Amino acid sequence: TRENSGVHATAFAIPLWADLAAIGIGGTQGAMFAAQFRDRRLDLLGVAIIGIVSGFGGGMIRDVLLARLPAALTSNWYLLVAVGGALIGMLLESVLQRLGIVMTVLDALTIGLYCAIGTTKALALGVPAVPAVFVGVLSAVGGSILRDLLLNLPIALMHVGSLYAIAAVVGASTLVALHALGVPIFLAALLCVAVTFGVRVLAVLFRWSLPEQRRIER
Amino acid sequence: TRENSGVHATAFAIPLWADLAAIGIGGTQGAMFAAQFRDRRLDLLGVAIIGIVSGFGGGMIRDVLLARLPAALTSNWYLLVAVGGALIGMLLESVLQRLGIVMTVLDALTIGLYCAIGTTKALALGVPAVPAVFVGVLSAVGGSILRDLLLNLPIALMHVGSLYAIAAVVGASTLVALHALGVPIFLAALLCVAVTFGVRVLAVLFRWSLPEQRRIER
Amino acid sequence: TRENSGVHATAFAIPLWADLAAIGIGGTQGAMFAAQFRDRRLDLLGVAIIGIVSGFGGGMIRDVLLARLPAALTSNWYLLVAVGGALIGMLLESVLQRLGIVMTVLDALTIGLYCAIGTTKALALGVPAVPAVFVGVLSAVGGSILRDLLLNLPIALMHVGSLYAIAAVVGASTLVALHALGVPIFLAALLCVAVTFGVRVLAVLFRWSLPEQRRIER
Repeated sequence: TRENSGVHATAFAIPLWADLAAIGIGGTQGAMFAAQFRDRRLDLLGVAIIGIVSGFGGGMIRDVLLARLPAALTSNWYLLVAVGGALIGMLLESVLQRLGIVMTVLDALTIGLYCAIGTTKALALGVPAVPAVFVGVLSAVGGSILRDLLLNLPIALMHVGSLYAIAAVVGASTLVALHALGVPIFLAALLCVAVTFGVRVLAVLFRWSLPEQRRIER
Repeated sequence: TRENSGVHATAFAIPLWADLAAIGIGGTQGAMFAAQFRDRRLDLLGVAIIGIVSGFGGGMIRDVLLARLPAALTSNWYLLVAVGGALIGMLLESVLQRLGIVMTVLDALTIGLYCAIGTTKALALGVPAVPAVFVGVLSAVGGSILRDLLLNLPIALMHVGSLYAIAAVVGASTLVALHALGVPIFLAALLCVAVTFGVRVLAVLFRWSLPEQRRIER
Repeated sequence: TRENSGVHATAFAIPLWADLAAIGIGGTQGAMFAAQFRDRRLDLLGVAIIGIVSGFGGGMIRDVLLARLPAALTSNWYLLVAVGGALIGMLLESVLQRLGIVMTVLDALTIGLYCAIGTTKALALGVPAVPAVFVGVLSAVGGSILRDLLLNLPIALMHVGSLYAIAAVVGASTLVALHALGVPIFLAALLCVAVTFGVRVLAVLFRWSLPEQRRIER
């Protein structure tokens, strides 16, 4: 039932430095997030673990679902950068908190990049359009799910919020639609990053959110 | 140490429509389950996610353990049907609640189908009898585990209840025993569905449950 | 970007009986741990599940990350031994509690064995040094993470404690360093077990722990 079995996309490969920058930012933000829970007595290892899952948890979920060896296990840099990012996030937390908007912008860029990488990787392996969007979204948000599970917190993603995952859904859908229309994969991926970034930043600025669950009353 | 390395079973393939029906029912029930937690402010995406993991979370765990690309990533239909089922479950919750017994029956059928699919798929890949039962049971109940993890609830499966997983254990064991005795895989799979279904429905009707943990006192 | 692509290590293979002994001890300890939570009404299946994830959850995470069929699915013995260990742990809990130091010693040995098996398996598949340490540590502690997730408890590993995971980090790092220096893999693995064991036991005896998270105050 492979519906895309003809010509496949090639995965959108970004330079290693850009990949590592995204992972470092993810690690830093994970540690800053964990710092809110000082009463939970996280030790240094706990902070490093949060940095690791925030940094490349999404990429690991992506590769496990695609039955591939995770990219993060193919080079020494991923883990070192994620842990380094986490230590910076922990030590400089009070400084970074004042850069709130900068961090939100960097985070939105990171979601967009991971979404584009995940969606194109799935397409390149012959995954059809709808599950390719699913893989792209999980790449973008999987790290935050693992982070919340490990911290024993409600999964932020599940609750009324600022379109974190929806931004990735819109971006990944844009990508597969453009790909289906014959747009070159590199251009489609760039637009995916831009759309994801735009939806996320606008949602934060204008406090957009999805409606809560409701039923048809009678 | 493959103990089944001779002639392998073929996986019990059911028509795509039956597979999708099971996923749709899973998605609907996931959303109805989530509707109990209105105070948690799940948004529409949260409901869709619960539908997705309830619908094919078990199948994903099965395929990840078997190191195969998940079936749900090979066609557009799985995700669409799971999300559609979840929306129906959310919107029509008050109607569906009155169909309690119908939903329990459909759910028992779904567990049985997933158990048979998972067990035969494992056998077909050369997995020995005992771990094949394990894979079949995880296929049947993995979705409910993921659902509870994402909703930050106690894992229902772990606690004294109505033989949800045990029904799958009995069904899958029946299947591997019949297969070892030379019964054709299709017939063994049908009996697995029937046994799983029967144990689950009878357990609900007669409130059967396993004893709680206890120790030898001295 | 494989950095180890030359001559690979071979995985440190231990005899099946030693592997199963480790899994049985893991299952027993998992059930003893679960017995603290009698108020949670775990049923017998719940105890068996805790035994299974404590016994070979780490090995499953290891093999899933390495995109290999989990070892536990290749023989009937793993599941039977893990469940058997869990039943013994449940029934004989009051006796075993008095053997506290024996259990701690056996547990430290088990962590060391799993750490060595996981690290060498990763190296044998061409994973570079840093992620090989990561895989080894996850092999050693993954079961306890899954156990805590399933019991809806705070993840013990994340919090200030007795160097459970750090012992594995030190042991796995020793192994990859010795391997890089040309020490035969079997000897490096034995030293990994010894170092992991030593750090863990000394940490329990002298109550060593990592510092809590902190930031640079200003």
